[in-house]
Amino acid sequence: MGEFELIDRFFKRLGASRDDVMLGVGDDAALLAVPIDHELVACVDTLVQGRHFPSSTRADDIGWRSLAVNLSDLAAMGAVPAWATLALTVPAADEEWLEGFAMGFDAIAKAHHVSLVGGDTTRGPLTVTVQAMGFVPQGAALRRRGATVGDLLYITGWPGDAAAGLALIEGRLPGQGAYRGALEHKFRRPEPRVAFGQRLRGVASACMDVSDGLGQDLGRLVAASGVGAVLRASELPLSQALFALAGEQGARDFALGGGDDYELLFTVPPSRRAGLARAMATAGAPACHCIGEITAGRGVRLVSDRGDLPVPRGWDPFSG
Amino acid sequence: MGEFELIDRFFKRLGASRDDVMLGVGDDAALLAVPIDHELVACVDTLVQGRHFPSSTRADDIGWRSLAVNLSDLAAMGAVPAWATLALTVPAADEEWLEGFAMGFDAIAKAHHVSLVGGDTTRGPLTVTVQAMGFVPQGAALRRRGATVGDLLYITGWPGDAAAGLALIEGRLPGQGAYRGALEHKFRRPEPRVAFGQRLRGVASACMDVSDGLGQDLGRLVAASGVGAVLRASELPLSQALFALAGEQGARDFALGGGDDYELLFTVPPSRRAGLARAMATAGAPACHCIGEITAGRGVRLVSDRGDLPVPRGWDPFSG
Repeated sequence: MGEFELIDRFFKRLGASRDDVMLGVGDDAALLAVPIDHELVACVDTLVQGRHFPSSTRADDIGWRSLAVNLSDLAAMGAVPAWATLALTVPAADEEWLEGFAMGFDAIAKAHHVSLVGGDTTRGPLTVTVQAMGFVPQGAALRRRGATVGDLLYITGWPGDAAAGLALIEGRLPGQGAYRGALEHKFRRPEPRVAFGQRLRGVASACMDVSDGLGQDLGRLVAASGVGAVLRASELPLSQALFALAGEQGARDFALGGGDDYELLFTVPPSRRAGLARAMATAGAPACHCIGEITAGRGVRLVSDRGDLPVPRGWDPFSG
Repeated sequence: MGEFELIDRFFKRLGASRDDVMLGVGDDAALLAVPIDHELVACVDTLVQGRHFPSSTRADDIGWRSLAVNLSDLAAMGAVPAWATLALTVPAADEEWLEGFAMGFDAIAKAHHVSLVGGDTTRGPLTVTVQAMGFVPQGAALRRRGATVGDLLYITGWPGDAAAGLALIEGRLPGQGAYRGALEHKFRRPEPRVAFGQRLRGVASACMDVSDGLGQDLGRLVAASGVGAVLRASELPLSQALFALAGEQGARDFALGGGDDYELLFTVPPSRRAGLARAMATAGAPACHCIGEITAGRGVRLVSDRGDLPVPRGWDPFSG
């Protein structure tokens, strides 16, 4: 099977079909129509086997994940996802693997009305790079900068669950039963907060997605905004499953330093709390927890009733 | 050096600075303004070490190449390049290598007024994926389909030179001196036909870039257009350097089956030959040679004065 046959069979029609795709997979480039009075939003993320997911990961989960992590970046901007390109490097043209990958990619693409518009399939060590593109009304995008002193700090969902799921898969954390299944699922199938990100436009003063650990990513948000933050250990949302399998301290470590959450971390000025309440009241909105606030100064303080605690470092591809 | 320091040092301000970049490297995604009445043009290409370039390739040449191959795709659409994202997977944070890569990328980005707006830097086997984005007036893009019977078939430049340059580098072809240097340079520093691609709007009926071998790529153009083509072996432009080092037969094989040319292959209706002459008369326009014509039927015939010849297969990442 050559590259062209492979693309024809597995990648020609992945995801949603959209009216704003003038030309999709199969030419030298795609032709796309960005709606008038909107900005284009573009991001890219690479997954390397053995670094971003264990070698045992199922092909359909890799396909899902490769788009999910990018949709999470678009969500953090408050953008509407529209198109994606896929650069897939595989060791061999394994049809079963390719079919699984395509199914996982297709499922999340269709769920978010994203069309695969281009790609490149090459041979080499398993590496997946997706660029996702979408749009946002002019000037309405959320950014990392914009948080000001006194803003309240929120996170969606249950940070740490996915990192604990990965630890279970890799045997670094023991555990069985329904809790194990729930946490593993959180790692295998991240759900980017796409709809909720759009509802945060005009509400959040700053926003980013959490992928490298809440503590580290919060450090980036406050650095971009030129402020500091206080994070209250007692307010961290810890899921029952995480608490049960990792214990209180372990759960906090996963929540603060684990990574792979793909939740939204955002700040809201107190005057806009009603707007946040409306966003949270929408059908399908995730749980949101206030975990601290923006302060003068720089950096992140993690406070508990026993004093300040160290902030776990989080994930970096070039450390360790 | 962590991922963030690395991005800050080497990748934060690569390429041109542009007014239509609302937000570049450093947030979750980039914010870009596509001009009104234009379509967005997007493409992606991956380079894997040892497959798309020899392991001995200099870092600056890899950086140049990673954007050049994408700009060539935009050129084939008649698009104006504007922005790029870079997904770089490297075995280690080697500062000298990263600096060289960044310099090569920056040089070609600035030459074509392209701004690097986002990226992802990860650790793993050396793999570079660039997505290039640009724009084209609504409805004006060149495509692979559109060639009709009787159209004349052209190629820019001197196909085969780059493939022979690679063969010299890899020791598969002997040769020394100025010819060797010239051919190696053609492989190391492809010059995408960006300005000329834009001049072919309204002139060419179909267009693509030649990267996998002229014979194979022409097969794709005629398949997309639902026509056939006759290619005249005697009309193939063979550079003096290629002819001298590879001989007549070898030169033809490189020109038809070699790949890595990044030249434009296009068709022009006879009624638009004056338009082509005007495009070719512009300053900086590449040499263009008429190498055949579009015919009824399907597939590519390679004709010579000794009868039909087999068309070399060209490059496919999943064959061999």
